[in-house]
Amino acid sequence: MQGVAVAERNSEAAAGGHDRGDGPGAGHGQAGRGMAADIADQPDVFARLLDTQAPAIAAIAATIATRQPKHVVFTARGTSDHAALYGSYLTEIRLGRPAGLASPSAITVYGARPDLRDALVIAVSQSGGSPDLAEVIRVAREQGALTLAVTNAPGSPLAEAAELHLDIAAGAERAVAATKTYTAELLALLLLVEAIRAPGSVPAELAALPELARQALADDTAVQLAPRYRFAGQVVTTGRGYAYPTAREAALKLMETSYVAALAFSGADLLHGPVAMADADVPVLAVVGAGPGGRSMADVLARLGERQADLVVIGPPGSPVPVPAAALRIPTPAVDEHLAPLLDILALQRLALALALARGLDPDAPRGLHKVTATL
Amino acid sequence: MQGVAVAERNSEAAAGGHDRGDGPGAGHGQAGRGMAADIADQPDVFARLLDTQAPAIAAIAATIATRQPKHVVFTARGTSDHAALYGSYLTEIRLGRPAGLASPSAITVYGARPDLRDALVIAVSQSGGSPDLAEVIRVAREQGALTLAVTNAPGSPLAEAAELHLDIAAGAERAVAATKTYTAELLALLLLVEAIRAPGSVPAELAALPELARQALADDTAVQLAPRYRFAGQVVTTGRGYAYPTAREAALKLMETSYVAALAFSGADLLHGPVAMADADVPVLAVVGAGPGGRSMADVLARLGERQADLVVIGPPGSPVPVPAAALRIPTPAVDEHLAPLLDILALQRLALALALARGLDPDAPRGLHKVTATL
Repeated sequence: MQGVAVAERNSEAAAGGHDRGDGPGAGHGQAGRGMAADIADQPDVFARLLDTQAPAIAAIAATIATRQPKHVVFTARGTSDHAALYGSYLTEIRLGRPAGLASPSAITVYGARPDLRDALVIAVSQSGGSPDLAEVIRVAREQGALTLAVTNAPGSPLAEAAELHLDIAAGAERAVAATKTYTAELLALLLLVEAIRAPGSVPAELAALPELARQALADDTAVQLAPRYRFAGQVVTTGRGYAYPTAREAALKLMETSYVAALAFSGADLLHGPVAMADADVPVLAVVGAGPGGRSMADVLARLGERQADLVVIGPPGSPVPVPAAALRIPTPAVDEHLAPLLDILALQRLALALALARGLDPDAPRGLHKVTATL
Repeated sequence: MQGVAVAERNSEAAAGGHDRGDGPGAGHGQAGRGMAADIADQPDVFARLLDTQAPAIAAIAATIATRQPKHVVFTARGTSDHAALYGSYLTEIRLGRPAGLASPSAITVYGARPDLRDALVIAVSQSGGSPDLAEVIRVAREQGALTLAVTNAPGSPLAEAAELHLDIAAGAERAVAATKTYTAELLALLLLVEAIRAPGSVPAELAALPELARQALADDTAVQLAPRYRFAGQVVTTGRGYAYPTAREAALKLMETSYVAALAFSGADLLHGPVAMADADVPVLAVVGAGPGGRSMADVLARLGERQADLVVIGPPGSPVPVPAAALRIPTPAVDEHLAPLLDILALQRLALALALARGLDPDAPRGLHKVTATL
């Protein structure tokens, strides 16, 4: 129980030690005001990360390049697990290094001591306060791994346990449900991967992200769709490749804020069994990118169309695959698929917020939830 | 679309080329008869695997020992993904090698070509007919990996693509929802890991599994509980460590056969957000082992108790942690946690079958499902 107390103190310090930036009582007055402010922050969070963290990221990339790990192991929980999943796609596709997600429990519960001398182990956690992730990083260091913590809390136990620390610099998050820390984790991992690929200046397509995020947040389609789900007991989300972390994170946001049973499946896994669930009474949110991942959703959309699923397609205008005629659309900026996770989730965060409000709930303080979850 | 045709032909051959073993019309007459027979087969499937596959497994273990891969990458879909997850726990905990699950889409959709010269890549698939897994194995071989296919179909494209093949020898599965091929995959992976750890004879605790499976199937508690969920729209399943694959597979079985929205969470992830969903109206099935994984569920059970969740605990009598007084129990054999996944799922398969029948559904042929899912 020692670890729990430490983690919660840390969380309080992180939440209380910053200017909340939007006046007294923010996040405690109107329902959802904190989450709305967090969501609205994201263009500025992107800009700050791009402006201030490049030197630190370049230094981390240089250390990784020197040590030449042969494979990358990600470990995370909850929302950050979806950022880790994005990181593993980036690592495999853009760096050509094998990457996978490992469960902390093998090490923390069963005492596994894998040989990690050829590994880079990356823990992702906004609070840096989960004792189990800090323990994984401590063991990984002992077992010879190069270790990196990606957090929003430089003084946290996790940040201090790792050899390298990447500060996502998102500022204090007001709501319990993570929004801006999620997209900041995504951007931090993307900047790191690009710095490993091509040391030097930040690519122009990344510099455009704050403005693209602003444009994405200016579109109200997702908010207008929220009342449609007022009485939905279940929601299915789906996507393939880079869109899969978005589907997972959207499902978690809906669960955390609106208590809807939201099931996320990769498009491929959906066809393996759970498609039996999809019919006109189960809404489906499908994230369909403009590139290979979107094209690989052709069969999934066709099957959902056959089953007359209630379908909303999230993606850039002009889908690369046929969309069933009855489907609704939430438009997102037209970008390369590896950038889309940073932008597509914005509309889905707003949908989760609007749905919670439509249900009379306060997404800033969901029942039964704390900002730091202490699992040992 | 070429790949789809090939895969479906293969599936038909696999399904039609064997004696179904229980008379004409099996699986086509009474609803659920095929699934019931598949479930009942499992003690014999375990015995057959133990009796006949030891030499092949020893040879595979010897090759792996010679090549000394530094890490293990699992790739699978659907039910087999849960067997792969079990395999990754075994690899980390019992072999001390890093292991993780990789998404096929990085390779098949985005053309990633990771350097896999230090990797053992294991694809798990009962049919061996998914074109995307065969493609992952082909690419992994080109990229220098030692490759292993674990299937129920020796002549399948996946079995032929891999350098090594482990035949789970489960016989033809009658129902679309996988049951005996799942537990046969688990046992095959366990036998392989034990053969790598200690070449030679099979440990006595493994030889006891057929008899323990018979005992587990003789207990009807799970079947008697099924009517309780007749009108449940959602179910949450949870477990940690070795129990987590069981929670995931139980959720998938419930979705495939009864179309219930079944959400699986590791105990740790459940506390991170989705616990907000759990209340008296959402049934929770918690898999609680007798060892470290079970002990790590203490906080989860306490929180579920506080929230007055409708809780059923699946595990050996005499839980290692306090169980809320109102919780119901499904008893399972008392074994070391690394063996429990082969036994605990049996009761949950029977629960899924009984629930489907209680709902007037035919679990042998769920709507919208085929035995082989072809994703490219």
